[in-house]
Amino acid sequence: MSATKKKPGRSRRAARSGSSEGSFSLAEVASAVGGRVAGDPSLRFSGVQGLDRATPRDLSWVADDLRAREARESRAGALLTAREEDAGGRPAVVVGSPTLALAAWLEAWRPPDRGRPGISKKAHVHPSARLGRGVSVAAGATIEAGAVVGARSILSAGAFVGKGAVLGEDCHLHPNAAVLERCQVGARGILHAGAVVGSDGFGYVWDGQRHRKIRQLGIVRIEEDVEIGANAAIDRATLGETVIGRGTKIDNLVQVGHNVTVGENSILCGQAGIAGSARLGRGVTLAGQVGVSDHVTIGDGVVATGQAGIVRGARIADGTTVSGMPAAPHRDFLRRSAWIARLPELARRVEELEKGLAGASQGGRPWKSESPKS
Amino acid sequence: MSATKKKPGRSRRAARSGSSEGSFSLAEVASAVGGRVAGDPSLRFSGVQGLDRATPRDLSWVADDLRAREARESRAGALLTAREEDAGGRPAVVVGSPTLALAAWLEAWRPPDRGRPGISKKAHVHPSARLGRGVSVAAGATIEAGAVVGARSILSAGAFVGKGAVLGEDCHLHPNAAVLERCQVGARGILHAGAVVGSDGFGYVWDGQRHRKIRQLGIVRIEEDVEIGANAAIDRATLGETVIGRGTKIDNLVQVGHNVTVGENSILCGQAGIAGSARLGRGVTLAGQVGVSDHVTIGDGVVATGQAGIVRGARIADGTTVSGMPAAPHRDFLRRSAWIARLPELARRVEELEKGLAGASQGGRPWKSESPKS
Amino acid sequence: MSATKKKPGRSRRAARSGSSEGSFSLAEVASAVGGRVAGDPSLRFSGVQGLDRATPRDLSWVADDLRAREARESRAGALLTAREEDAGGRPAVVVGSPTLALAAWLEAWRPPDRGRPGISKKAHVHPSARLGRGVSVAAGATIEAGAVVGARSILSAGAFVGKGAVLGEDCHLHPNAAVLERCQVGARGILHAGAVVGSDGFGYVWDGQRHRKIRQLGIVRIEEDVEIGANAAIDRATLGETVIGRGTKIDNLVQVGHNVTVGENSILCGQAGIAGSARLGRGVTLAGQVGVSDHVTIGDGVVATGQAGIVRGARIADGTTVSGMPAAPHRDFLRRSAWIARLPELARRVEELEKGLAGASQGGRPWKSESPKS
Repeated sequence: MSATKKKPGRSRRAARSGSSEGSFSLAEVASAVGGRVAGDPSLRFSGVQGLDRATPRDLSWVADDLRAREARESRAGALLTAREEDAGGRPAVVVGSPTLALAAWLEAWRPPDRGRPGISKKAHVHPSARLGRGVSVAAGATIEAGAVVGARSILSAGAFVGKGAVLGEDCHLHPNAAVLERCQVGARGILHAGAVVGSDGFGYVWDGQRHRKIRQLGIVRIEEDVEIGANAAIDRATLGETVIGRGTKIDNLVQVGHNVTVGENSILCGQAGIAGSARLGRGVTLAGQVGVSDHVTIGDGVVATGQAGIVRGARIADGTTVSGMPAAPHRDFLRRSAWIARLPELARRVEELEKGLAGASQGGRPWKSESPKS
Repeated sequence: MSATKKKPGRSRRAARSGSSEGSFSLAEVASAVGGRVAGDPSLRFSGVQGLDRATPRDLSWVADDLRAREARESRAGALLTAREEDAGGRPAVVVGSPTLALAAWLEAWRPPDRGRPGISKKAHVHPSARLGRGVSVAAGATIEAGAVVGARSILSAGAFVGKGAVLGEDCHLHPNAAVLERCQVGARGILHAGAVVGSDGFGYVWDGQRHRKIRQLGIVRIEEDVEIGANAAIDRATLGETVIGRGTKIDNLVQVGHNVTVGENSILCGQAGIAGSARLGRGVTLAGQVGVSDHVTIGDGVVATGQAGIVRGARIADGTTVSGMPAAPHRDFLRRSAWIARLPELARRVEELEKGLAGASQGGRPWKSESPKS
Repeated sequence: MSATKKKPGRSRRAARSGSSEGSFSLAEVASAVGGRVAGDPSLRFSGVQGLDRATPRDLSWVADDLRAREARESRAGALLTAREEDAGGRPAVVVGSPTLALAAWLEAWRPPDRGRPGISKKAHVHPSARLGRGVSVAAGATIEAGAVVGARSILSAGAFVGKGAVLGEDCHLHPNAAVLERCQVGARGILHAGAVVGSDGFGYVWDGQRHRKIRQLGIVRIEEDVEIGANAAIDRATLGETVIGRGTKIDNLVQVGHNVTVGENSILCGQAGIAGSARLGRGVTLAGQVGVSDHVTIGDGVVATGQAGIVRGARIADGTTVSGMPAAPHRDFLRRSAWIARLPELARRVEELEKGLAGASQGGRPWKSESPKS
């Protein structure tokens, strides 16, 4: 209790809050996250907050060493921390990775609300659709002919599963999310509100008078544990498949073109766009607003920083970090950016050199002068 | 009537249109906008159009001095103008700000259609939801358990208000707009079609094998008088709040990440994106497709021009205008851009200097030559 | 049959698949695309696939000469090709444009499924709406008062047609697509899932204390044969019209501001954005993530490459290809990009020159030295 003795007011208030619904003890936290309590394990807290918002009734976390000072100066009642000393004497749960422990604790403390299973009378489910056990279908949701929805999946209001589409188990389609005809979403797939899987690829051919549409007959195949952000759009393949690999996470408003392949465990941040037939490896990170041209190949573990533009014909090697438009290795981008910032100065220096050489030659076009002095 | 005497044909036609439904007199306009009529206040017009489309039956407006000539050459029957002379002799309503007067007149002339209050039988409203007086809920809209909808608010078809969410008075959710669980929208909030408030923040932690989702338990709090564009997405905070300040206007397809704070009266133009935990001050303008990295701080009154990229670690001072990627003060950007355009020339000049100096030294590596001439 | 003799295994397998449903003969293909069979016209195939995925049971196509080698090395059972020799001896249908033939064949082979006409009881159709023959309205779709829907048009689940809006014949609104009040979509218009036509323009005027909304009373007028991508947003005009010309194709997540005009047969790729009042000519191509500032004028046939930023005041001449931000003619962009990549080297050369000139003058500020040598 030495830690709490130093800050009795805090810990007492924290302890008092123990009776409120949803409160938890440090022992519970430590058990859920596989950590060790430093302090009184029976101390109770009522909330979890970031360091800037935490009160003495809240648990917070020290994401990394850079946050140690902020942690010590915070008002947090207790901390998830990798180093006990970063807790500044207050109660703590010591763990290998505080952020991982946070994820584990939030899931234990506030498990996702799966709602009550059942099909709303205001939903539209085609008789030929097959639904697993415990499926929940809200008012205004639609499941078309021949579709399959895995056990315990949730369709929120306005969600749509098209003809012959297949959802795995434990999927969640948030309001107005749509999985169109014949597309597939693996187990535990999450589509946030307004996300679209299986819109037509953008394929036309000029026939001399108009852009003639090429029928888009392929599908989108989304492997397991994929999350797709609000109002993102994943196009179906012209023929064959657009593939999103297992465990990949896609943020809001991302565009994925037809016949694209994204490898496993990749991260596509907000408003990134990938044009048709591009191939991304495993563990790729596209930061916000990155653009990838069609038919580009991107290796495993590549990182493209914000707004980078990976242009046609590019082939980005495994593990590279690229930046800028056209995208270049990040270090080159930084050096170039630094020189661009100094361009006016560089231009001035060139001008001075020209004057200097002209002075050196005392007239005439200096670089043609026969003699550098008169 | 001197003004109309000069253009009798126009004014007569305008006058003739007076009997048609929705027509209005200059006196009515002047009264609604607090202006002074120059010409016959009883003249009637039937429409309002921009200078390029206006006919003699239309009122138009002179947005600023640069439009004076266009105004004089237009076919408009009457003008809202700050300077009577810009009307070129035709009838006018003279006001301090013609654009402000336009806004006032359009609102007076064509007040928003609030529809008929009432709840469609084809809507889904949970019995525990609380609805204020005069609320309108269209077919296919959903209000979930415990939600609160303020008086006179309108939910169009497919609109969604999640569990425990709160809408203030006089809000309007256009078709398929969604305010998800527990999020809050202040009075007079407008969500255009497909806008999403409260999608999960994009938060994961790598556990050695996969990106583990961090539960997003916070909310979005939108203050009063905020407008959010079609298919925009505002993520909820991990914990705590994502905040959109009073009077801020957000355009279509904008992305706002978790835990972001946007100050009052800011303007976020189409397709701008703000990554997690960024803080924007008051009166900030992000032009189209601007990207803001996570944890960035942007001061009051900052303007970022189109496609600017505000990179990690940046701290933009109050009142600054920034451009480019990485974003720099606008004047620097312009100078750099000008020099980039001249880079091939600059390179040529360097080459000439090298030749010149080589010529000066007559052979050898000039910068190492012992003597500048033979 | 000489072609098949060389690859008997393949052709036999292909022939065996002839009995399966949906299989087709080369004669059928040739007839549909107006081509000539090289090989046995009675050979049957069961699918169509790209060269990389095609099996001996599939028809594939040689998009252009660059694909000739890939075609010869592919496993495809038969090919649409412009040159018989590119088929590498296997059966082929020889046509002028293989890609055009592909489009024609896919349409003949798999004609769009127009669904069964009729209005779902779970749809909401206002009694004053007028629907043409053979219209199909799914559960959860809404057609408001005074709207007109042309013959054979399809409204998928959650699709929305607002008051007084007009759809031409043979339109298709995919799930949750919306055509708002009074907007018009021409015949054969396709709106993909979540697309919004007629959201308010982003128009405000600062009144000294707040951004006052300018009522957006205009419409969007979409001409015939236009396709609009998933979650794209087209704003209505403040007054007058936002116009999308006949035959123009718009990709996912594109933003078109108020009062914009896009000419006929243009192509706007994913995530491109066009600010208010810009005017695009005919046959314009905006690649992915291109940004166009307000009031810009873009000529016929202009191409803007990926992420290009066409800034305010720009006027892009007919037929120009532009790149970069700010956008410049593509050749200039390439030269500048090449020089930016060499900037560190250029800076080094300037430094060497400075040293060289200093060496030449042996001390002092070289460009001011009276004499180039001591």
